[in-house]
Amino acid sequence: MAKQNAFYAQSGGVTAVINATACGVIETARKHRDKVGKVYAGRDGIIGALTEDLIDTSKESPAAIRALRYTPAGAFGSCRYKLKGFEENRAQYARLIEVFKAHHIGYFFYNGGNDSADTAYKVSQISGRLGYPVICVGIPKTVDNDLAVTDCCPGFGSVAKYVAVSIREAGFDVASMARTSTKVFVLEVMGRHAGWITAACGLAAEKAGDAPQILLFPEITFDSDKFLARVDQVVKQYGYCAIGVSEGLRNAEGGFLSESGLKDAFGHAQLGGVAPLIASLVKDRLGYKYHWAVADYLQRSARHIASKTDAQQAYAVGKAAVELAVKGRNAVMPVIVRKSNRPYRWAIEAADLKDIANKEKMMPREFITADGFHITAKCRQYLSPLIAGEDYPPYRNGLPDYVKLRNVAVPKKLSTGFKV
Amino acid sequence: MAKQNAFYAQSGGVTAVINATACGVIETARKHRDKVGKVYAGRDGIIGALTEDLIDTSKESPAAIRALRYTPAGAFGSCRYKLKGFEENRAQYARLIEVFKAHHIGYFFYNGGNDSADTAYKVSQISGRLGYPVICVGIPKTVDNDLAVTDCCPGFGSVAKYVAVSIREAGFDVASMARTSTKVFVLEVMGRHAGWITAACGLAAEKAGDAPQILLFPEITFDSDKFLARVDQVVKQYGYCAIGVSEGLRNAEGGFLSESGLKDAFGHAQLGGVAPLIASLVKDRLGYKYHWAVADYLQRSARHIASKTDAQQAYAVGKAAVELAVKGRNAVMPVIVRKSNRPYRWAIEAADLKDIANKEKMMPREFITADGFHITAKCRQYLSPLIAGEDYPPYRNGLPDYVKLRNVAVPKKLSTGFKV
Repeated sequence: MAKQNAFYAQSGGVTAVINATACGVIETARKHRDKVGKVYAGRDGIIGALTEDLIDTSKESPAAIRALRYTPAGAFGSCRYKLKGFEENRAQYARLIEVFKAHHIGYFFYNGGNDSADTAYKVSQISGRLGYPVICVGIPKTVDNDLAVTDCCPGFGSVAKYVAVSIREAGFDVASMARTSTKVFVLEVMGRHAGWITAACGLAAEKAGDAPQILLFPEITFDSDKFLARVDQVVKQYGYCAIGVSEGLRNAEGGFLSESGLKDAFGHAQLGGVAPLIASLVKDRLGYKYHWAVADYLQRSARHIASKTDAQQAYAVGKAAVELAVKGRNAVMPVIVRKSNRPYRWAIEAADLKDIANKEKMMPREFITADGFHITAKCRQYLSPLIAGEDYPPYRNGLPDYVKLRNVAVPKKLSTGFKV
Repeated sequence: MAKQNAFYAQSGGVTAVINATACGVIETARKHRDKVGKVYAGRDGIIGALTEDLIDTSKESPAAIRALRYTPAGAFGSCRYKLKGFEENRAQYARLIEVFKAHHIGYFFYNGGNDSADTAYKVSQISGRLGYPVICVGIPKTVDNDLAVTDCCPGFGSVAKYVAVSIREAGFDVASMARTSTKVFVLEVMGRHAGWITAACGLAAEKAGDAPQILLFPEITFDSDKFLARVDQVVKQYGYCAIGVSEGLRNAEGGFLSESGLKDAFGHAQLGGVAPLIASLVKDRLGYKYHWAVADYLQRSARHIASKTDAQQAYAVGKAAVELAVKGRNAVMPVIVRKSNRPYRWAIEAADLKDIANKEKMMPREFITADGFHITAKCRQYLSPLIAGEDYPPYRNGLPDYVKLRNVAVPKKLSTGFKV
């Protein structure tokens, strides 16, 4: 293949380290100038390709690109936009290829979750059929840690570290106040379908009595009587109780607790917020004073407390993606393979996109204790290395000195637009 | 005065650095063994004194005491328990003196806010009258930054840093997602009566368009039309909008917005949570997709991202308190005096407790922009040095290695109890 440009896009919810992956892609591509021309990024993800809104990353200085390694969120913008099946919407794929062709793009790097792996896989198959074969490499990213094949997902380790650190700190706080004030603290965390992030809260509890004493997983149907009995027991035994709860906690009917009736002042159903619900249930039935927190975006953007392991893996998959592409590997994804637990060793290997596309890795039941309220030793063994190490960003004026790129647009070459 | 023991108690809501103050007190007392015997801490604050539940800090190793410097929350327990006026409840004061006398306590260090300064002042006056004069030194602590005389309050700088870092990071996140998803993000922070913490969010916005674009202060009556117009303008101009809101935001009638009608699934008024209210107002009236976070205890316990300035000042006031006491200074508080802004220089000086007791320092109106939605340059100049510097705790297994003390009880000497 002659020297061609590359297209890189970020997809779905961003993370504390997805830009570290972008950094790995761009820095590695710059080392392979014989095979890779410019790296164009999609402004707001794949939408940037469809609308021919490309960002020329060659306009960014080496220092700016290096700074991506410690800058959270999506430097080029991301989007929630899923390409349909080829038969349902040929126009999307035809447009993508049209834009790739116009800009001499021969490499497509798609940095996202299950959906994105599926899209990258489809493009890898369809581009040839449309007469313009493109090398497609998926790159893993998701705080939900639910991608198949890879041992873990870049982005997850840093959220895991954030929630574990946060609930440890809040636990210390509540323990100090419990005599006359707050006895129960509830932290709501992300993970609508799988309890990986909730489980990570459990890492903070290393000894009996440590916070959090109770975890509420989306995998375990919420049983209020059983839960309240446990809270009461914990408060009586340790003086206070810290609880980590998944936003995706479900009731016996299978519905989300967060949608079970919280109304705002205007009478509208209040979306999100299972923590206040759990907290007021405790107050109502047990009479304990409570506090609650909802971490929301803070958890997935918290680059200031990123896991070093996670940041290194995020960079490594970006680097490996380019190395695979220049070797001509198509329809693959660099994945993280765990080589050993103690010491923790990992390597990057290539997996086929078709084995990853649209699959969802759930948390094994054996990672949750029999009573459903905590994590097992096996879970701890899996999670612990993922939060290891700190990787602090530089600071200026007391604040993390994150980079905002110039994001210079590539001049358009097509006369047609595309409606997304 | 012959060599006497000291009593130290933590009061009210704890902070990320109140234990650094405890560390300063204990380490400094250990250097003045000629004048100070043992340091006894109140278990759960002043309640420990009233119930003769004292902790013997001499049973803790130097390493454990040193670790207090980077351990958040109250290592001996704190409480919300205000001593009444002397005339209203002589029994409380008589009991305090009885316990002090029984344990040869000649120094009383009370680490808290306005109320605690008042209590320390009262004890300084009454102990002599009751025939057992005690040297009373208040030590400043409060995340609310509302103590009089002192330039700032230990505990505040670290919350300030936490909220500024968090809203910067979440702002990066929302900016990436805004094209197809979340356009408005709301972070709720502490500070029911004064907007110091809300103001600190504003430090993250260094350039036009930076998050947060809007701040909602407890000092400024909430005007929904004006607010919504501003949100709409910001979203149209920058693509997204990040908002920092005080838990103490009030409506035109002077009531807390958070108490204006949020009902939970059980039909009970939901306390706390102005962020979801603001967010759903935006959704309802402007149609923008939103996310919200409530930091709650995470902000005041976040020792992992403490301000170095704050941690140093917290230690310094503890150290100074003991130095004042051994010099025989009674009814005083070591306060922080700002000597210059650039470079930021500060010193510890002694102030009279009576000038601090029960006073509340509000945020000057000139610290808030004329439109009420942001901070002024003057405010920035005041706040900026307080979040300067990082002071990371040590980590073990990927988590901050905070200390839990043994907290060995001092044998009781009195046959009587006291009901609190």
